[in-house]
Amino acid sequence: MAEKITPRSVDYSRWYLDVIREAELAESSPVRGCMVIRPYGYRIWEAVQGGLDRRFKDTGHENAYFPLFIPESFLRKEAEHVEGFAPELAVVTIGGGKKLEEPLVVRPTSETIIGHMYSKWVQSYRDLPLLINQWANVVRWEMRTRPFLRTMEFLWQEEHTAHATSEEAVEETLRMLDVYADFAINDAAIPVIKGVKSEKEKFAGAVNSYSIEAMMGNGWALQAGTSHYLGDNFSRAFEITYLDRDNETRYCHTTSWGVSTRMVGAIIMAHGDDHGLRLPPRIAPIQVVIVPIWRKEKEKSVVLELADQVNNALRDAGIRVRLDAREDQTPGFKFNDWEMRGVPVRVEIGPRDVKSNSVVLARRDRPGREGKQFGIPVSGIVPEVNSLLEDVQQSLLAEATNFREANIRPVADYAQFKSVLKDQGGFLRVYWAGSREDEERIQEETKATLRCLPMDCPDDEGECFYTGKRTNRIAIFARAY
Amino acid sequence: MAEKITPRSVDYSRWYLDVIREAELAESSPVRGCMVIRPYGYRIWEAVQGGLDRRFKDTGHENAYFPLFIPESFLRKEAEHVEGFAPELAVVTIGGGKKLEEPLVVRPTSETIIGHMYSKWVQSYRDLPLLINQWANVVRWEMRTRPFLRTMEFLWQEEHTAHATSEEAVEETLRMLDVYADFAINDAAIPVIKGVKSEKEKFAGAVNSYSIEAMMGNGWALQAGTSHYLGDNFSRAFEITYLDRDNETRYCHTTSWGVSTRMVGAIIMAHGDDHGLRLPPRIAPIQVVIVPIWRKEKEKSVVLELADQVNNALRDAGIRVRLDAREDQTPGFKFNDWEMRGVPVRVEIGPRDVKSNSVVLARRDRPGREGKQFGIPVSGIVPEVNSLLEDVQQSLLAEATNFREANIRPVADYAQFKSVLKDQGGFLRVYWAGSREDEERIQEETKATLRCLPMDCPDDEGECFYTGKRTNRIAIFARAY
Repeated sequence: MAEKITPRSVDYSRWYLDVIREAELAESSPVRGCMVIRPYGYRIWEAVQGGLDRRFKDTGHENAYFPLFIPESFLRKEAEHVEGFAPELAVVTIGGGKKLEEPLVVRPTSETIIGHMYSKWVQSYRDLPLLINQWANVVRWEMRTRPFLRTMEFLWQEEHTAHATSEEAVEETLRMLDVYADFAINDAAIPVIKGVKSEKEKFAGAVNSYSIEAMMGNGWALQAGTSHYLGDNFSRAFEITYLDRDNETRYCHTTSWGVSTRMVGAIIMAHGDDHGLRLPPRIAPIQVVIVPIWRKEKEKSVVLELADQVNNALRDAGIRVRLDAREDQTPGFKFNDWEMRGVPVRVEIGPRDVKSNSVVLARRDRPGREGKQFGIPVSGIVPEVNSLLEDVQQSLLAEATNFREANIRPVADYAQFKSVLKDQGGFLRVYWAGSREDEERIQEETKATLRCLPMDCPDDEGECFYTGKRTNRIAIFARAY
Repeated sequence: MAEKITPRSVDYSRWYLDVIREAELAESSPVRGCMVIRPYGYRIWEAVQGGLDRRFKDTGHENAYFPLFIPESFLRKEAEHVEGFAPELAVVTIGGGKKLEEPLVVRPTSETIIGHMYSKWVQSYRDLPLLINQWANVVRWEMRTRPFLRTMEFLWQEEHTAHATSEEAVEETLRMLDVYADFAINDAAIPVIKGVKSEKEKFAGAVNSYSIEAMMGNGWALQAGTSHYLGDNFSRAFEITYLDRDNETRYCHTTSWGVSTRMVGAIIMAHGDDHGLRLPPRIAPIQVVIVPIWRKEKEKSVVLELADQVNNALRDAGIRVRLDAREDQTPGFKFNDWEMRGVPVRVEIGPRDVKSNSVVLARRDRPGREGKQFGIPVSGIVPEVNSLLEDVQQSLLAEATNFREANIRPVADYAQFKSVLKDQGGFLRVYWAGSREDEERIQEETKATLRCLPMDCPDDEGECFYTGKRTNRIAIFARAY
């Protein structure tokens, strides 16, 4: 199995595609740029959805559903927005056999149609805040696609909120950035950096965009979620106004924030190794696989009996467990197969284990004998497995955090920037006082982009690595997906 | 509040639209034929999704996701299928600013693209059965739309399965029809009739279509779910073949089955009354509303304190509860408002209840004093409310079942058929040996359609009400949504 996966050091891009194919996460479709998300990949997405949706509801948000189609004229109402999305649109021109009078755009995002509805729903300060999320598919006509990371159609959630004041809207923007970081760190075991996007990288129509940036296994960055403060740009374009307590008409301040199926790509690349996927237990579709081992026919029934017993005990405890009792595959094949699919914990049960009424536990994140525990009594299997799952969850986070820390590199000037980027990669941490044009030039020359201006930074001063100006602003540059 | 809702007896159609508007379930959108599903309506859909998804997973099905777009050529591969859907298609002809070489159809259903993928995934008998479900939006260009019942875009699940033999595929088709009926009856409290669709009404490309048919409050029928046995029609069109144990190439037998946002319409119309919605507790977004009642300021704090206590107790017990502590609305307004929104149980708490440390319970399905229980001790509130919720659930099902039984009318000949349909309506139960043409003529003359040939029927004989031929086939005719 493993030989079907290109080692990361040989070709990281091919490694990524190999893992997705071999673990049956997704597949290309007959529609250029659109992928099929296969059941195992979709279950990871369902875990992402579940973890986020719970957090959204806990913070007072509700789900709703808005139309897939948007009248072309709506997109034109916010100037920067249409400029940002126009080149990426899929347009329906024929409906029910007839040419449409006004073409319909397949939503690239729903700011405009939701803005239109909000203008009806918000009348008074009593209607605020309005906190509505949508789980949906969106379409952006991308020419260069990569499964989960950039596809023509993708799945996401987009929340749109309307508030009475800019303070409240900014607070919401930052609160949900924290919620995203909490999910990434605690469920997906991905350490992320929260920060502000630069003018060049911000959302089309936003006052400020914030993101969580994650480091992938090759040192590249991946923007894993964004939260935008839109000011009154959209409420002016769509007339989202309210009467305040003094009966004055005021514009709302709005936000939007989203996480997409990219998160699945982030999970693959933040944790995977040369054997394949490594899934954090809170996200893993299968947390524990049981592999029964027998040679002689008379061993088979007693081994399977104990395997069944362990399977039932784990299932009853709410653990997502799979008993792999296939008869046409060897235990060795199964070990490799489930390792490749990233299952965090393996239970091995052979004839000797039956005699001692115990099992062997093996953890995915530590290969070989080092990751094995022998003679775990069946009577205590549930707490033992639960504590091992928790340990794997924490270890993956610690490993990813250590890897990231080791690959954040402060650089002092542009020459060093270029050589470090070329020789070592990772996140380049710099003082930054440059302009949008400087950013563009750096990208042209090095392919690195300004990922964010991190929010948790010491407040000291230094010289901008590019302009030489004194500044207290820190920026992270990196190659990015 | 109630006066904003047209009584059912005056105009059932307007009643339906009034309820949807007043309960804030959905709203028309700027895109003709597409609705916006508002949070309260979407939570009902989430309950439908939850109840079905759990049942699908319990029966071995997995979720996946296939592209929104389908190459136009795919639809032409199955002759009946393209004929059935061609007039209803939305077509993307422009992408990324350029005219497309092959237009892309927005999926009206995914049989074809899923068939294409299945042909790759199925190679051997070991790959079967393949049991994959998709939760998705689909688009059919409808001219006459009605919220939840018929919209241009709607949400649904579509499962597509592939099997080695026709027996297994038929078994799956019927198993899932049972799963749908189980959900409808036990979660949505809607009694349904399982049956076979006629040639005229079956799915474009199916060998046999089955449905669950529900009776709405005006006696009309609503098809609330369908399950299709597709034979090898799609596997021949898409080359879904497998090598059997003898290494012979064989065509798979496939099924598909779906339930859509129509189910929300069914729930509204199966249970609603002139005051508005009545929601079965298992589906209700809010199962219990607490209305605190006070006049004097000094009463307020003690009443709210007890209301908080009850709120926390119910929430901790996993009951979906809402405390309505709005200060700018009277208790009477709140009673009407939550009644209109169909909340199954109301808890009233006033100063006298505080003194006796008890509350008043009122059930939505029995109006007035008859539905109230006084002096329920706070100490026993959780079991009391749980048992009342269960009682409301069962009572709504019993009421809907009695209503349906009272409105199934056996008729013997076409003259009687026409007069009963005109004067009384409901489901007309007949012996049936007619042809497709007969069915079409009956529909033209009476607007009634053949809903299904019920599966649970006595095996006796009679004369077809239309042709006079002897037959043992029973059919249900009705006006339908």
